[in-house]
Amino acid sequence: MIIILKKGAPKTEVDELCRGIEAQNIIINEVRGEHTTILGLIGDTHKIDMEAIQAQEIVESVQRVQEPYKGVNRKFHPEDTVISVGNTKIGDGNVAVIAGPCSIETEEQIVDTCMKVKEAGANLLRGGAFKPRTSPYSFQGLGGEGLKLFLKAKKATGLPIVTELMSLAHLDLFADVDVIQVGARNMQNFEMLKELGKCNKPILLKRGLSSTIEELLMSAEYIFAGGNTNVILCERGIRTFETQTRNTLDISAVPVIKSLSHLPVVIDPSHATGKYELVEPMSMAAVAAGADGLIIEVHNNPQKALCDGAQSLTPKHFSACVKKCSSIASVMGKTVGTQQ
Amino acid sequence: MIIILKKGAPKTEVDELCRGIEAQNIIINEVRGEHTTILGLIGDTHKIDMEAIQAQEIVESVQRVQEPYKGVNRKFHPEDTVISVGNTKIGDGNVAVIAGPCSIETEEQIVDTCMKVKEAGANLLRGGAFKPRTSPYSFQGLGGEGLKLFLKAKKATGLPIVTELMSLAHLDLFADVDVIQVGARNMQNFEMLKELGKCNKPILLKRGLSSTIEELLMSAEYIFAGGNTNVILCERGIRTFETQTRNTLDISAVPVIKSLSHLPVVIDPSHATGKYELVEPMSMAAVAAGADGLIIEVHNNPQKALCDGAQSLTPKHFSACVKKCSSIASVMGKTVGTQQ
Amino acid sequence: MIIILKKGAPKTEVDELCRGIEAQNIIINEVRGEHTTILGLIGDTHKIDMEAIQAQEIVESVQRVQEPYKGVNRKFHPEDTVISVGNTKIGDGNVAVIAGPCSIETEEQIVDTCMKVKEAGANLLRGGAFKPRTSPYSFQGLGGEGLKLFLKAKKATGLPIVTELMSLAHLDLFADVDVIQVGARNMQNFEMLKELGKCNKPILLKRGLSSTIEELLMSAEYIFAGGNTNVILCERGIRTFETQTRNTLDISAVPVIKSLSHLPVVIDPSHATGKYELVEPMSMAAVAAGADGLIIEVHNNPQKALCDGAQSLTPKHFSACVKKCSSIASVMGKTVGTQQ
Amino acid sequence: MIIILKKGAPKTEVDELCRGIEAQNIIINEVRGEHTTILGLIGDTHKIDMEAIQAQEIVESVQRVQEPYKGVNRKFHPEDTVISVGNTKIGDGNVAVIAGPCSIETEEQIVDTCMKVKEAGANLLRGGAFKPRTSPYSFQGLGGEGLKLFLKAKKATGLPIVTELMSLAHLDLFADVDVIQVGARNMQNFEMLKELGKCNKPILLKRGLSSTIEELLMSAEYIFAGGNTNVILCERGIRTFETQTRNTLDISAVPVIKSLSHLPVVIDPSHATGKYELVEPMSMAAVAAGADGLIIEVHNNPQKALCDGAQSLTPKHFSACVKKCSSIASVMGKTVGTQQ
Repeated sequence: MIIILKKGAPKTEVDELCRGIEAQNIIINEVRGEHTTILGLIGDTHKIDMEAIQAQEIVESVQRVQEPYKGVNRKFHPEDTVISVGNTKIGDGNVAVIAGPCSIETEEQIVDTCMKVKEAGANLLRGGAFKPRTSPYSFQGLGGEGLKLFLKAKKATGLPIVTELMSLAHLDLFADVDVIQVGARNMQNFEMLKELGKCNKPILLKRGLSSTIEELLMSAEYIFAGGNTNVILCERGIRTFETQTRNTLDISAVPVIKSLSHLPVVIDPSHATGKYELVEPMSMAAVAAGADGLIIEVHNNPQKALCDGAQSLTPKHFSACVKKCSSIASVMGKTVGTQQ
Repeated sequence: MIIILKKGAPKTEVDELCRGIEAQNIIINEVRGEHTTILGLIGDTHKIDMEAIQAQEIVESVQRVQEPYKGVNRKFHPEDTVISVGNTKIGDGNVAVIAGPCSIETEEQIVDTCMKVKEAGANLLRGGAFKPRTSPYSFQGLGGEGLKLFLKAKKATGLPIVTELMSLAHLDLFADVDVIQVGARNMQNFEMLKELGKCNKPILLKRGLSSTIEELLMSAEYIFAGGNTNVILCERGIRTFETQTRNTLDISAVPVIKSLSHLPVVIDPSHATGKYELVEPMSMAAVAAGADGLIIEVHNNPQKALCDGAQSLTPKHFSACVKKCSSIASVMGKTVGTQQ
Repeated sequence: MIIILKKGAPKTEVDELCRGIEAQNIIINEVRGEHTTILGLIGDTHKIDMEAIQAQEIVESVQRVQEPYKGVNRKFHPEDTVISVGNTKIGDGNVAVIAGPCSIETEEQIVDTCMKVKEAGANLLRGGAFKPRTSPYSFQGLGGEGLKLFLKAKKATGLPIVTELMSLAHLDLFADVDVIQVGARNMQNFEMLKELGKCNKPILLKRGLSSTIEELLMSAEYIFAGGNTNVILCERGIRTFETQTRNTLDISAVPVIKSLSHLPVVIDPSHATGKYELVEPMSMAAVAAGADGLIIEVHNNPQKALCDGAQSLTPKHFSACVKKCSSIASVMGKTVGTQQ
Repeated sequence: MIIILKKGAPKTEVDELCRGIEAQNIIINEVRGEHTTILGLIGDTHKIDMEAIQAQEIVESVQRVQEPYKGVNRKFHPEDTVISVGNTKIGDGNVAVIAGPCSIETEEQIVDTCMKVKEAGANLLRGGAFKPRTSPYSFQGLGGEGLKLFLKAKKATGLPIVTELMSLAHLDLFADVDVIQVGARNMQNFEMLKELGKCNKPILLKRGLSSTIEELLMSAEYIFAGGNTNVILCERGIRTFETQTRNTLDISAVPVIKSLSHLPVVIDPSHATGKYELVEPMSMAAVAAGADGLIIEVHNNPQKALCDGAQSLTPKHFSACVKKCSSIASVMGKTVGTQQ
């Protein structure tokens, strides 16, 4: 960390600031120029509160040199983290395929869709029981009843399931859920992150619509800080000025995150684009960019979907998409949707 | 609502779509051009699911004509909603001043700061007991203990208090809190909004960092839908590419929201800018733009603040700021910080 | 186009508005609801001025149904436009590779770099003689002298060259340039676009940092309107809040543009990311998403580059990148960098 | 400037880097920690090319400590720059009012509108002869003919005129123009900025839609570098995700720019919001935030305007707006639209 002092900062105040920092086991090097004095802080600075230092009157600005996260930082854990769910690995050369409908609607719909996505190559199932909707008048999901239907699909297919937690009050219902999803809107629901740090299930943590990659990693760090290191990161589009797509899929987040962190990264082309016809090219691009997984919305009858039908693939289209992604993966020495 | 059909959409499918819509008590007018057919929907369309219609293969696009919110819509409630808290009105010609520290730290700090902001003209107190922090290593607030200290400041000053709820699990602790704040990161925590719809306290709902004004109003609509119509909206800066300020304060949101909705709007210049020296000019600008209130961070010793010291005013600077805002308000025929 | 009228709009004013529109050979259908009256305009509306209509007091809002561009619109020209430069096709199953240094610095540097990129598979050369730099103190390019050096590289390699035009005053110097590049900062330099519409060279039009896809297509429409239909569109990153990359590469722009327009689309991963280590994965992603070309910065000694060295590949790394992109292309039935 | 080296950077390469920097009269201080080595550069670093340093393999990152601009920097020129045009001062306690139509359409329209805005308190006239329009099918302005009509309005009112330059090829026509406007789309048309640096007229430099404040100041630095120090900065809205306003007016840019630079700042509420009903509250907010001027679109018949009628005030509404702004200014000890 580097502190730039204001010109003419009184020596006594500078000394007081330095003593406070040194008390946290940090060594300070002072670089004194004609117009500027710089303090270079050496040591484990990731717990130092930048804002508290910025608040000092003698301080012009503070800049980090080291990343503010530690547990998720690749520098301290160079090997890729590989998450295993059921028979599937996320990472380690396998691009996991998570598929299923946006919302769980009926037993027929969820079981049929899941059977079909399994056949087409999916190795984890997705489906929403509790749905975050912008409007209170939109379908809000079947809730606990939906989870029960989803468990039937899990049983019918033998595949593990991923579903979103919208409130800690529902956590008890998630006992048989294999991967808990934290939605984009809850990426900085810190009370939820703390609680999930205490559970032992893999967490699929989605990037917030306007969250930086660093903030995503800090939210993962919350889960790590609680003791749970099974975190899968998910890029699902960020909010920009462009209106042709629902959000702008930031595919460069894949190599960027993988350089900063050891955690696996999956891409959600369905929510990112909001348009079914963009799911296939964006899935292929994600695999080519090095993603460890895809999470794709599939509905056995998109035109009748109660939620997000416009971005859902049919099982047939999904099957074609998986095949094309497999071709891309194969030239990279990877597999798509493989079971161990 | 307007539906634009794809060229060559088969008549039987168009008929099926129309029958489905008409079943919801909507009248459809068809406008048929050479290249385009448009369906104009007349009636109460705010509960119609645009996405479900968009998912139909025969549909090229869907556009709203009416706003998707009803309870908070000025069209259906032309008079300003005025919220009274204690002896203070928010709206109706009074610019309410909510002030206090970012975090509650000690009894001395919170009581002293609150006494001073009262003296300087504040008529509601703010202070954080549960703090949303990007890093798990930053000070997280004193929690329930902090709330107890805040109640001492309430007693000492006789002023009502505003504080943030971060989890429904804490709601029981908020019995003596006068206004419950929903933070920017929880603006779309729909489970929380639903629950707050059932309580009878005023809710200060902060706009999310990347939320549109329409989304803010939809979140307020969630609270309305539950039965609670005491909602105060708060603009606190949106995320943009500019880095000189923490966020970009969208002051035009004040007149825009007031044209769309009858709810009062307050401005938070402290969080929006992140810099104490910008709080005064932005407060004055907010009053000039027609804001119904200000929420300002004040700390009796900003340099020792455990949180956000860089954006906190001293009591002395705050007092000067209130005076200047009062001058602006007076030329507009309004008052600042008046008690009834 | 759809016009939504304000409630209670006087009939005489509505009639006047309608007569003005009908005078432009547009047929109007009126849809009258309880709260809303909608005018549906049928005909060739792309020349109607939405803003002029929006300015009418009786108008609540105006919405487009058809795209505001015609020449570049795929609806009116369903087949892909393929641009041939020298022996290379951009489109039609070939992913063109444009490579070279950010700036032309010396004869040795430009000729050596160009020979090496040719060897590695490039089929067009890029190089900047006139450089847009944020700071007046940064290297501004060699200007006309640089163009002469670039022509030596053209001669030495036999490959066509692409370079940026920064001012119409320089146009005379571009006689032997094969493709004229319009930089992101000049995407809406309409006087330049009009003039380039009159020339018969292919134009590489880069998307502005904060330009929507529709605005990019409108700028291409300016060139078409002048009579030049040889336009190649280039996505090079848009400005967002994320700071890990210089800009955010919007790869979804590839399939989006290709659905809206018949023009070829190339991707510039170097400027989009600003980091050489991201160029390869983003190039592969671009090919997988269906791009018709790549434009990549290569320098024979990036550490000595006068400009943008941080994002330049070495010739060796570039060669590896082209090979990987070829593998991706081959599974899609396409080629990379092929000469006819 | 601070350079953070990669761990394990070879000493010989570090030495070579340091020698290169020291050759530019910079003193280097090395701060060596366990994980990190920092080089602190002391001296006049604003001409050092950060990107060239970033391109070195041994460098992890580079951070600026000093601003990259000098001429426009308040640190080197603490007093406010006040620009005088005709009898009007922009700055020094006077809020200049620049008003007139978006486009010059007819002699009657421009002269009548200008007479009326003068009467209402404007002290400079605005009007567009060359118009930047997104669509080639929209009205492009009357060009040189329009300038002639504008000079008639100048003569009739005795007020100085401001108008936009869209191409250096038109510069000869601007001999009698008092202030040359550089539009948002040309803020980084560096060839234009260089040329305007050589002229002796005041330049009104508008911030680009997605330009940072630092980039705006760097563009002003281009004009300064050419020798012209008569620069007025203009904030006119930045592009964000919000769609209720055309752009988001960044009013905090006023105090931010004034702290960084000595140049005057004016606000354009008309283009920023795109809606006439928002012009008055945003003008008042701008004055309250400390702006040195306002530039407002007024049309004698907005409903017949050929351009941007939706954001134009009538002369009557403009007159009321100026009065309200004057009231705001008066409580700040300032005047609005005063002539010397």
